[in-house]
Amino acid sequence: MTTATALSGVIPPVCTPLTPDFEVDRPSLIRLVDHLLAGGVDGLFLLGSTSEVAYLPDGHRRTVLDTVIGHVGGQVPVLAGVIDMTALRVLDHVRVAVQAGVAGIVATAPFYTRTHPAEIAVHFRTIAQHAGVPLYAYDLPVSVHSKLGAQLLLELAAEGVLAGLKDSSGDEGGFREVLLGRRARELDSFAVLTGSELTVDAALWMGADGVVPGLGNVDPHGYVRLFQAARDDDWTAARTEQERLFRLFGLVHVGGAHMGRSSSALGAFKAALHLCGIIDSPTTAIPQIALDDAEIAAVGRYLADAGLL
Amino acid sequence: MTTATALSGVIPPVCTPLTPDFEVDRPSLIRLVDHLLAGGVDGLFLLGSTSEVAYLPDGHRRTVLDTVIGHVGGQVPVLAGVIDMTALRVLDHVRVAVQAGVAGIVATAPFYTRTHPAEIAVHFRTIAQHAGVPLYAYDLPVSVHSKLGAQLLLELAAEGVLAGLKDSSGDEGGFREVLLGRRARELDSFAVLTGSELTVDAALWMGADGVVPGLGNVDPHGYVRLFQAARDDDWTAARTEQERLFRLFGLVHVGGAHMGRSSSALGAFKAALHLCGIIDSPTTAIPQIALDDAEIAAVGRYLADAGLL
Amino acid sequence: MTTATALSGVIPPVCTPLTPDFEVDRPSLIRLVDHLLAGGVDGLFLLGSTSEVAYLPDGHRRTVLDTVIGHVGGQVPVLAGVIDMTALRVLDHVRVAVQAGVAGIVATAPFYTRTHPAEIAVHFRTIAQHAGVPLYAYDLPVSVHSKLGAQLLLELAAEGVLAGLKDSSGDEGGFREVLLGRRARELDSFAVLTGSELTVDAALWMGADGVVPGLGNVDPHGYVRLFQAARDDDWTAARTEQERLFRLFGLVHVGGAHMGRSSSALGAFKAALHLCGIIDSPTTAIPQIALDDAEIAAVGRYLADAGLL
Amino acid sequence: MTTATALSGVIPPVCTPLTPDFEVDRPSLIRLVDHLLAGGVDGLFLLGSTSEVAYLPDGHRRTVLDTVIGHVGGQVPVLAGVIDMTALRVLDHVRVAVQAGVAGIVATAPFYTRTHPAEIAVHFRTIAQHAGVPLYAYDLPVSVHSKLGAQLLLELAAEGVLAGLKDSSGDEGGFREVLLGRRARELDSFAVLTGSELTVDAALWMGADGVVPGLGNVDPHGYVRLFQAARDDDWTAARTEQERLFRLFGLVHVGGAHMGRSSSALGAFKAALHLCGIIDSPTTAIPQIALDDAEIAAVGRYLADAGLL
Repeated sequence: MTTATALSGVIPPVCTPLTPDFEVDRPSLIRLVDHLLAGGVDGLFLLGSTSEVAYLPDGHRRTVLDTVIGHVGGQVPVLAGVIDMTALRVLDHVRVAVQAGVAGIVATAPFYTRTHPAEIAVHFRTIAQHAGVPLYAYDLPVSVHSKLGAQLLLELAAEGVLAGLKDSSGDEGGFREVLLGRRARELDSFAVLTGSELTVDAALWMGADGVVPGLGNVDPHGYVRLFQAARDDDWTAARTEQERLFRLFGLVHVGGAHMGRSSSALGAFKAALHLCGIIDSPTTAIPQIALDDAEIAAVGRYLADAGLL
Repeated sequence: MTTATALSGVIPPVCTPLTPDFEVDRPSLIRLVDHLLAGGVDGLFLLGSTSEVAYLPDGHRRTVLDTVIGHVGGQVPVLAGVIDMTALRVLDHVRVAVQAGVAGIVATAPFYTRTHPAEIAVHFRTIAQHAGVPLYAYDLPVSVHSKLGAQLLLELAAEGVLAGLKDSSGDEGGFREVLLGRRARELDSFAVLTGSELTVDAALWMGADGVVPGLGNVDPHGYVRLFQAARDDDWTAARTEQERLFRLFGLVHVGGAHMGRSSSALGAFKAALHLCGIIDSPTTAIPQIALDDAEIAAVGRYLADAGLL
Repeated sequence: MTTATALSGVIPPVCTPLTPDFEVDRPSLIRLVDHLLAGGVDGLFLLGSTSEVAYLPDGHRRTVLDTVIGHVGGQVPVLAGVIDMTALRVLDHVRVAVQAGVAGIVATAPFYTRTHPAEIAVHFRTIAQHAGVPLYAYDLPVSVHSKLGAQLLLELAAEGVLAGLKDSSGDEGGFREVLLGRRARELDSFAVLTGSELTVDAALWMGADGVVPGLGNVDPHGYVRLFQAARDDDWTAARTEQERLFRLFGLVHVGGAHMGRSSSALGAFKAALHLCGIIDSPTTAIPQIALDDAEIAAVGRYLADAGLL
Repeated sequence: MTTATALSGVIPPVCTPLTPDFEVDRPSLIRLVDHLLAGGVDGLFLLGSTSEVAYLPDGHRRTVLDTVIGHVGGQVPVLAGVIDMTALRVLDHVRVAVQAGVAGIVATAPFYTRTHPAEIAVHFRTIAQHAGVPLYAYDLPVSVHSKLGAQLLLELAAEGVLAGLKDSSGDEGGFREVLLGRRARELDSFAVLTGSELTVDAALWMGADGVVPGLGNVDPHGYVRLFQAARDDDWTAARTEQERLFRLFGLVHVGGAHMGRSSSALGAFKAALHLCGIIDSPTTAIPQIALDDAEIAAVGRYLADAGLL
């Protein structure tokens, strides 16, 4: 169930461009994918949180999978989120994703329910048993309100249930526990990716294999340069690049307090892609509040400061 | 979009009996519905949290709707949960539920995402606009991690977006704020139901229209007696009945700390229904830990103490 | 260690009037106590959350104790909060309170630390062992981030460690579990008081002995009428009074979102007492943001609507 | 109010050895300080969370200050926590600490109360105005349930209110925001220290000035080697040392789930110091559950594996 070598590099969670009436904008999605591939990314992660997966009905999810996988044609591995509350619902998404041709699937712990760690293990085992493609755990306590413990992850890795981890928990101590545990238990094919896009140099320094950066939609070249510098052992260059990206990341706050925190970040990524001419509309999914003109102008200033506009 | 008179009485959230291989057990479900109707309930709430809705794939949800609505044949109103992360996903469930013939739908605030109150309003407005049947808000912060504020609920009631509320927040002050605000704003057709099954006498005393008690699966007669006593202004009888049901409710804790809190409660309800001969198997959905024999025996003692076995 | 009969009735948590330079305003405090006694209250609770105990240095705490206990002269029992992080620190406050002549002390679970329930039990046992006066548990998860479980409370009551409970948890199911457990275990001298000032009729209906209402500073007569009506079994009158007090309670929100929630409520109580001529200054303790003139005027309108001005 | 050059290096939060009857064990405390000085630490932090400050009555706090400051005699700067709920209470501790001769004080955001960010600013400004020694902010949301935002910290640094930060929030993105903001605003004398003892190499790599490691009580030499390697730009050596310390840190979990998480960690640090012959008793403060013999033996194995026994 695991890949021979661990997944690695820059694997952005791909935004889902929408038309003004909230349909998937396929031409824009294809242009976005081309933009990412031109940036040199090592893989694509569809239908993650940054893709607004929680807002997309199943039909939209299918459209995204078919559009991207058909277009990419195997140039890079394409993973897909199969985000739903519990295992049997997840498996419905898995079937669609596998049929569409994904290289791997990404699942969170159960949510909405209050779930014991022993039940989280059953959840992942059930998914893996029926998936037929590598399964990656997505640690995202801010959304699912459970933290995946390092020992549980390593145990599931050793069992062959998990092919890897995308850690968006922000818990760097726990992340390092996974990395050191992987080394101690010689679980070399278990991929450890960080979703903490502001400390990627540190994560790679500790031994991570790659990064899944939301901001990578806007500036894939930056994250690819950062990863390459780290691979070349030029950590000072990696840090300088990360610090530049850190400043650019400030754009996620333009929406302020009159909308959800997700809405501000996702709205800013899409506004940036729209300003750069990559997608046709900055529309975010219902029921998110849209950025107003002044906020979009503020996004533009971040892009200009970063030399992206 | 609202009903002429507010929904009222005892409207249990119907458990979803499963076969040992996790399919919907339709004969058991029909027997459970008959048990509830024989108990004198005023309506049925399908696909709520107690129904394990978070664990059921869409196919199972459809089976539950078709089985129950066909069997009930209009004797009492049947509501259905349309539980999903955000409005467009919810609307996919709404279409299925409306086609199956529900009398109303029940939706929570968005979850998985971090949503601003202004966005929660858009969420409910979007659902109501397309539903075609009355929409009830389900306030369940323990699952969705947002609290529905009283003023927001009253505003949506005044707009005609919401036909009622099922309050499982446990916040009795906020609940009373809704009740007093409904009176002050003369929103008489807005139904206010409590899901706090241990303080139903108090909720009715404050002015609630009814209750959605999970324990009502096990002892519908008890909740119906409680409601009738309150309606007859015999509050002492209502309290005595509630206190008896309070003691019976202790069965939800038999599972202890080696499983999720939901699993213990849902497992106990199903074990009780199995011990009473109403459903064929106490199976709960994946990935919940099952009660063991000693725990099931403990459920039996609660039933015996309550004179139900 | 316990009293012969359980404490009961209306026992307001007494606000601590301050001078504009943040010293205890003793004349105002005495006038406030007289206002409460004239209202017919059954006891006084000094140095609780509503008294801004978390903001008062030890010297201020001592001044409050000496001022009030000397003035009351045994007309009603005077309890005092001994609020601090853990048992040994609490005991320093206990010594001062006992020397000042309190009739009982009120302590929370440990805070700042992350404490196991078994450790919470040791905490209360240690305090009780050295107190020499009855010890009341103060359940206030919003401040201490631990919930006192009903079974733990009943066990400590049975041991003679706790003389009673002030429940400000807002968990009415847990509150009723304490009340029914007290009856089942015949712990008659264990006093159960609610701090949920918006559902006092319901709490008394369930069997509570009394209430500790912050709003009772502003309108002690109202809470005394409510309690008397309940004692006289005139529950409709009790409810009507509670609903009037509910509307008055709206004044706690005048401060809106530009200050802490405590600051808005405490500022409104003090502004009301100042507008009524009972205390000289509406000053709240550092570092709370003060209400502005428009917000104080809004408090005045609540008082006028309630016939208190 | 700020120091000319920012505080830097390894500044362990000093454990407070206790006698079996819970008094401060001064001879053991002096031996512990000598052990830390012999390890080459750059400063000492008394009365922090690791010092069990939340458990120590004021008399104990005074004893600790007098014992250590007298013994150290200015060899290294000695900081002290002035941990209490709000500013006026904190200032009582400040007076004692300043009189004892501390080089700086360390204060958290308010706790027990629910405090608005604008009020947190007033809190720190009030303390700084009266302190007379440099004030360090202690960001510890796990204890005080507020997060100190980077922009607030930088503003207070620019005002001269704060001399530095001890960040134990675990939020590495926010930590880097402080570091980059310090550079951008040229606040060179503002010290930024991490309390995240498992990612010190990464924190130093990002630009932190030093570390306040609880585990530094047990192995000060290790943290000093780590800091020196970083200062010498030998990041590989720093990482290797950090990974060794990471494995040693596993001892904090020996207490498992039958005690508070703090109790397990603090008990393990003290058991280690006792096993190493540095302190006379592993006693932790009331009401913490003590480690049992098997758990203490497990601590010993960690020490042996680390070559410390």
